[in-house]
Amino acid sequence: MKSTKSDKTFIIRLEKEDKIIESLTTFCKDNNIKAGYFTGLGACESALLAHYSLETKKYSEKNLKEPLEIIHLNGNISEMNNEPYLHVHIAVSNDKMQVFGGHLKEAVIGPTCEIFLTPLEKTLNRKPDEEIGLNLLDI
Amino acid sequence: MKSTKSDKTFIIRLEKEDKIIESLTTFCKDNNIKAGYFTGLGACESALLAHYSLETKKYSEKNLKEPLEIIHLNGNISEMNNEPYLHVHIAVSNDKMQVFGGHLKEAVIGPTCEIFLTPLEKTLNRKPDEEIGLNLLDI
Amino acid sequence: MKSTKSDKTFIIRLEKEDKIIESLTTFCKDNNIKAGYFTGLGACESALLAHYSLETKKYSEKNLKEPLEIIHLNGNISEMNNEPYLHVHIAVSNDKMQVFGGHLKEAVIGPTCEIFLTPLEKTLNRKPDEEIGLNLLDI
Repeated sequence: MKSTKSDKTFIIRLEKEDKIIESLTTFCKDNNIKAGYFTGLGACESALLAHYSLETKKYSEKNLKEPLEIIHLNGNISEMNNEPYLHVHIAVSNDKMQVFGGHLKEAVIGPTCEIFLTPLEKTLNRKPDEEIGLNLLDI
Repeated sequence: MKSTKSDKTFIIRLEKEDKIIESLTTFCKDNNIKAGYFTGLGACESALLAHYSLETKKYSEKNLKEPLEIIHLNGNISEMNNEPYLHVHIAVSNDKMQVFGGHLKEAVIGPTCEIFLTPLEKTLNRKPDEEIGLNLLDI
Repeated sequence: MKSTKSDKTFIIRLEKEDKIIESLTTFCKDNNIKAGYFTGLGACESALLAHYSLETKKYSEKNLKEPLEIIHLNGNISEMNNEPYLHVHIAVSNDKMQVFGGHLKEAVIGPTCEIFLTPLEKTLNRKPDEEIGLNLLDI
């Protein structure tokens, strides 16, 4: 993982074998980022996608294991229990240009991933919501 | 609908049963936002998508009625006749992680929807374009 | 291509027959933009998508020739050899609301395309990476 900064924006490049969620969580800790959002593009070797059911309060999963373009890495940053909490959705495409998407549990970078991250001054927190079964933004 | 602000960015959380276009239009009116853009993610219970044909100058529609992850809520804000005008496209995925997308007519939120909205100082207007059959940005 | 500016953000409207990559590259040259990122939505008449294989170090392509909604135009701006270098991914949908996506080689605008571009002060450079076979961000 490489990074630089311009204006208030962090520019991050993930490298082959980097894990997206793991890497960005470390990045937020190291840079003391407690709120923000980011957008990215690139390509990955695999991606574990998930879909939430309000009825069962559980995620179903699909593990894609093939070279995939990352059409859009779409995420936000908050905190829970004083740790960075990343909420990330992703759209990826295979070599037929078919697109799959979902809540991103984790993905392993292939050639590269280029991320533009906008940090915010405010601390954003999450707390569990029993009815919904998820950790919602506490605003 | 809950919201807070950090730096110049509005952070908005839509709640179960909130309608995206209706809620954000109200938000822009209430906060006197005349231009801007936003990005979001979350999940919805239904989404009415549309596809425009230049030939017929009409939208065709598809009404999805199932739990869907919102991979990307992608919109901009302008004004027409002194009212907020939202132009929004969306990508959603079902429990097979298949993605559908289009011009968003309306969607009803399921568990949550987290939106980061960047307002701009300038007033952006739209005006109808006869040849295209749509209300284009007047710039 | 029409454009205006508010705060630091450029708002760009591409018009029927404009090519996305060609138009935005010209825009960056004309406005001396050496780094930044952008998001857009609209509709196109055709789009040439590509998918990279690390194994062969080549892109495969798919040329879509039909009216398509642009669900998301997702790009960043850097420089190589003192010329603007655009890295752009795109998701588009057909009249069945099916989504296709990939690395964008070029697309021809249909009714309109509305782009919000955030320039950054820093110069971002790219350089070829032999192992990966692509021009990576030099950070």
